[in-house]
This record gives sequence, structure tokens and C-alpha cells, in this order.
Amino acid sequence: MDRIAQRRIQRVDTRTGARTADRDPVIAEAALTICARGREAMVVMRTPGPSGEDAELVRGLLHAEGVADAVALAIRQVEADVVEVDLDPATLAPRALTSTAACGVCGRAAIADLELRAREVAAEWTVGAAVIAGLPAALRARQAAFDATGGLHAAGLFDRAGALRALREDVGRHNAVDKLVGWGLATGVDFAASILVLSGRLGYELAQKAVVAGVPVLAAVSAPTTLAIDVCERFGVTACGFVRDGRLNVYSHGHRVDP
Amino acid sequence: MDRIAQRRIQRVDTRTGARTADRDPVIAEAALTICARGREAMVVMRTPGPSGEDAELVRGLLHAEGVADAVALAIRQVEADVVEVDLDPATLAPRALTSTAACGVCGRAAIADLELRAREVAAEWTVGAAVIAGLPAALRARQAAFDATGGLHAAGLFDRAGALRALREDVGRHNAVDKLVGWGLATGVDFAASILVLSGRLGYELAQKAVVAGVPVLAAVSAPTTLAIDVCERFGVTACGFVRDGRLNVYSHGHRVDP
Repeated sequence: MDRIAQRRIQRVDTRTGARTADRDPVIAEAALTICARGREAMVVMRTPGPSGEDAELVRGLLHAEGVADAVALAIRQVEADVVEVDLDPATLAPRALTSTAACGVCGRAAIADLELRAREVAAEWTVGAAVIAGLPAALRARQAAFDATGGLHAAGLFDRAGALRALREDVGRHNAVDKLVGWGLATGVDFAASILVLSGRLGYELAQKAVVAGVPVLAAVSAPTTLAIDVCERFGVTACGFVRDGRLNVYSHGHRVDP
Repeated sequence: MDRIAQRRIQRVDTRTGARTADRDPVIAEAALTICARGREAMVVMRTPGPSGEDAELVRGLLHAEGVADAVALAIRQVEADVVEVDLDPATLAPRALTSTAACGVCGRAAIADLELRAREVAAEWTVGAAVIAGLPAALRARQAAFDATGGLHAAGLFDRAGALRALREDVGRHNAVDKLVGWGLATGVDFAASILVLSGRLGYELAQKAVVAGVPVLAAVSAPTTLAIDVCERFGVTACGFVRDGRLNVYSHGHRVDP
């Protein structure tokens, strides 16, 4: 499988006002199911790679987890996104292995699982591209006060006019979003009238958290993954990536982004 | 708790040959235990923050996971790194919630857990600071051929002379390392004579994987966390961070880095 996939995007340059339909390479992200003697034992989200790489991933992961004999373990790719290991499923079950952080993935059906507990985000409002383009700098300006290390991820919730509602930081980007959503749940913030800004990339896990919280617009400083775009597309979320230097790419539901 | 901690480092500038002992702010990373009605139910690694932030984290995480009533859930901080939630532990157990990817953390004792299944890395060799300083560019040069997205993490295994043994990429930095270690286990590479280079930050999870594989020298392009440094210190691993532009910081076991 390819680790890069082409996706349709809209390139927006707020300095020139240009908005162009284009195609762009996007990092592939997909669920890999690990079966132990025929029983589904674990799911990890990963970037698919050349033949043999899934087996390497599973061998390395089980070794790091202290599974005995991971070095000599028989690992067989049985489908594109399924590997079979010659282990008692009970060896894996009590370890609570999930390689994505709390992603709630269920088997091969990441999106199907989400359908059971999330609704489509249906907010009707729009926001100017120039407002979105300015949010990462606003996030960074506030973060700079705290972050002397250069290594903390930030997540910020902004209103439609571009005013910051709250910002949270963590070494884990998923933690920063969980803190922010937890703050919003406790304070009763209107997620449906908010924009979630991420200091890094937009992976499946973060898209899923935005959907469950009901945030209609996501703006990430860095790249999205294929699965994150799929989730945003399916659940009505506007996904913006590479939001920097006055420019942004819109990957889904561009109708919320005004010129 | 503070999200930044001061640590002793050695600053090395390979362009001037300067090597200076200094102190530097490092991102705090620590395990947070979530107890459900008195029983330990989950552990997540996070950056500690101001009062109330752990409760926000837990509320947001449980909401994202679809735990009913996360909005109104009673969440109480009972110790610095322990929160108590008013939930049946059985509600959490089958979800296999772990917020760090496959980290093998056991309760409050991340390092103690690792002691059970890892040995101190005892390699006696040294490597020139200039060799280490050149590795990220070598990694990036090889990665550029694959990465048109700007979003893939890379992990590379190099020998002591700075020659690349293998490189793996993934949207998840832990996956890139697992793939690389899985490759090394299958091919019988000498991890004890290798340097592991990471395109991003050095967190606990990656330090733990290096220790279990037995790699004596780590070089990360970006920042380490406190817990990653602690793990490297305890298990004899040389941790280098901010390896870029001919400079690097050495956080542990600097005796392996020649001037």
C-alpha cells in the first residue's frame, strides 16, 4: 500500500485572495488489525508501507511491550490491513494494547464505530479565510508565554471572530485537545460555534475528538492524514491544514470558508 | 505542578568545538492514574498543568471515548498524579484505554515497570559530536525522497561512523520506531552498536522503546521530556536533543559523546 494518497483540496491564499481547486499528496493513515490465532486482538493506526513493513511494526511493538519471543514470532500478512501472529490471544488481551491513544477504534471500522456515538456536525455559519489564517499565530503568541522548551503541543478554541476562548498545552497533542474539550464541557462552551486550532498535524484521533465534541471547523498548522480527512468529510467538519503565512488548504466542507 | 522543569545539560557546538555545562527548561511528562471508585482503571502520560487541568483531561478523554455522562461526571484530584472518577471500573476496563501508545506503563511506576523487563545499556564505545550533529540531515535527505507531504515522522538506525542502516516512516513517531526495531530484530542488527535518530521529539514512550531494544545513543531533532531523560539516565542511554545546525544538547550519559 502507498504511504501517500492524492486528495482534492482547495488552496486559499488570503494575501492574493486566490482560491484554487487542486490535488495534493496526503499522508496515508489506516487501521491495522492484529489477529492472534484467528481472533482480533489489537488495532493500531499506522501509515501503510512497502510489503513486510506491517510485520516489522507488529514485531517491534510486541517486543517493546515485553511479549516473549517477539524476535522469532511467526507474523503473517493475511490481508492488506490484517496481520496474523502465532500467539495466544490471552497474551495480548490483558495488556490493553492500543497504539493510538484512546482512539476508540473497533476493528477495521474506525468510521463505522464513530457512527455509533457521534452525529454529523451541522453548523450553518461561515468564517473568513483571513480569520482562519490568523489563528495559528494567535495561538503561538499565547503559547509562547508558557513554552520555553519549544516542545509543547497546543490546542486552542476560538470563536468565529477569531477571539481565543481557551488554550491548553501538553506534550501529547491528543492530551491538549482532551484538556480543552474537558474545559469546554465543564464550562458549557458552545462547541458548535467554535474553531479548534491545532499546533501540529491533524490525524484520525484528533478529527474524531473534534467530531465527538461537535466542533465544525478545524485548523491545523501542519498536515492532515487521509483518515482524518475522511472522518471530517463524513461528519460535516471543515478541515483546514497547513494554515500558515496567510495561506491554508481546505480538505473538506469548504462551504464554511468565506473568501 | 509545573509543566516545565529545569534539567542539567551539556551544550555542544560542533562548529566552535565548545562544550558547556548548563541548565535548560524541559517539558514535564508524568503518569496520571485514573481511579474508578478506588480501583486503578487507566494510566495516561501527560504534561502536568495548573490546578484543574487533570480533571479537564480526564473529562475530555472519557467524553471522546463515549463514556456516558462524562459532562456531569464527578472527577476529583486525590493526589498530584491521581484523579478519582465516580464510575464503575468495569465501564473503563473493557475499553482498553491507554492514552500513550502502547507504553506499558503500570500505575505510578513507569520506570519501575521497565526495570522488570529491560537491562541497563552498557555499550562502551563513543561517537564524535560532529557525527551525531550530521545525522538528522542525513535522515531528512533520505526521507525527502518519500515524503511529499511534509508530515511523516522518520526514525533511522545509524552505525557509529554515521552510515544509515535503515529508515522507517509513519504518521505516528512510535510506529516509525516500532517498524525500525522490528526490522532490526528480524535481520539481527547489532542494536548495541547503533544510534537511533528521531525526526521529532523524544518522549517517554520512545526512550522506553530504545531501552528495550538496547540502543545506547539517541539523537532527536526536537525536545526531550523529563520522563524520557529519566529513563535514559537510569538505563545508561545517551540522550541528545535539539540536534540541528551543528549543535546538540546532551541530557544523559555524555561520556559517549566525543568532542
